[in-house]
Amino acid sequence: MSGHAGAVSDLVDQLSKLPGIGRKSAERLAFHLLRVHEDEALALASAIRRVRTDVRYCSVCYNLSETELCRICSDPKRDATRLCVVEQPRDLLSLDASGVYSGLYHVLLGRIAPLDGITPDQLTIDSLVERVRTGNFSEIIMATNPTVEGDGTSLYLSNLMQEFPVEITRLARGITSGSVLEYANREIIADALTGRQRL
Amino acid sequence: MSGHAGAVSDLVDQLSKLPGIGRKSAERLAFHLLRVHEDEALALASAIRRVRTDVRYCSVCYNLSETELCRICSDPKRDATRLCVVEQPRDLLSLDASGVYSGLYHVLLGRIAPLDGITPDQLTIDSLVERVRTGNFSEIIMATNPTVEGDGTSLYLSNLMQEFPVEITRLARGITSGSVLEYANREIIADALTGRQRL
Repeated sequence: MSGHAGAVSDLVDQLSKLPGIGRKSAERLAFHLLRVHEDEALALASAIRRVRTDVRYCSVCYNLSETELCRICSDPKRDATRLCVVEQPRDLLSLDASGVYSGLYHVLLGRIAPLDGITPDQLTIDSLVERVRTGNFSEIIMATNPTVEGDGTSLYLSNLMQEFPVEITRLARGITSGSVLEYANREIIADALTGRQRL
Repeated sequence: MSGHAGAVSDLVDQLSKLPGIGRKSAERLAFHLLRVHEDEALALASAIRRVRTDVRYCSVCYNLSETELCRICSDPKRDATRLCVVEQPRDLLSLDASGVYSGLYHVLLGRIAPLDGITPDQLTIDSLVERVRTGNFSEIIMATNPTVEGDGTSLYLSNLMQEFPVEITRLARGITSGSVLEYANREIIADALTGRQRL
């Protein structure tokens, strides 16, 4: 819709660049930001600014951090013999929130995706291999996404690390807790049968 | 989800205050803003800031504007004998985008909603009455939303303006172009029958 004042139209343009935000939603958000208390709108603006100036990648595991070492890498209570490899910082958060794992992480910052032009050298693979070479890990857990590209990345990495004396595992596949068998697709059922566990 | 770096967690908090943005969406947006080019993230931050510093209400009609008078009020080609009353600036934009109306507008900045504690004195009604009293309008078009509160506001305003020699009209109600009768509810059908037009 044309006819906005320049600043409003500019804000709508910027908001509609966000993923999942169309033109109409962007307009709704813009009018919301015009209507709320000025402090609230400015707090959002400065939160965006701050996240780009203060947040960087942990120099060891590439998790997001406001310090040189992230809170996980700098925590002496974590199990330094296990390393869990994930695609993105948000995957790390999901895994860590489960409370089941207390080892270290390595964030690849993506997955190998030749069709999107993402090759191994654009990920943090060199630094992962170096960590495994010099570290004291007994197990590397591949926790990339269960997609073609995620699986491909896992396979590539496990080939790379065959020379090291570590056990390489991946996340279990099967039916999801709370789901119903009726709606599980063939692939899920196949995974669940193949990986069946003794009761 | 806990465990974000402080700045990320702060941004997620701010984003999830936006209407229609839940916690998960806010996280997705925050990670997007961390991943895109820094210029793009900062452009959004400054667009938000600019909209709050540069945009104000037009001193005559309360449309959003970066100048004292909005582009409609300052356009000598608009028909100054017609005034269309809307609830919000975005309603004005929708109406004006139709291209059917070339008169002036008045934005109430809300609707009378006793249940939400919004009383007539919180809207721009005084200034509307003053415009109609001193202006040269022949028609006032009520274009509030077709809701109980919007209709109530229209009725309240038309009572207020009975003393002035102006015709007071409201937007036509009926079936919407492109819809199917089968899905129209009883109220829509009743409006369409009551307001039927000669072919």
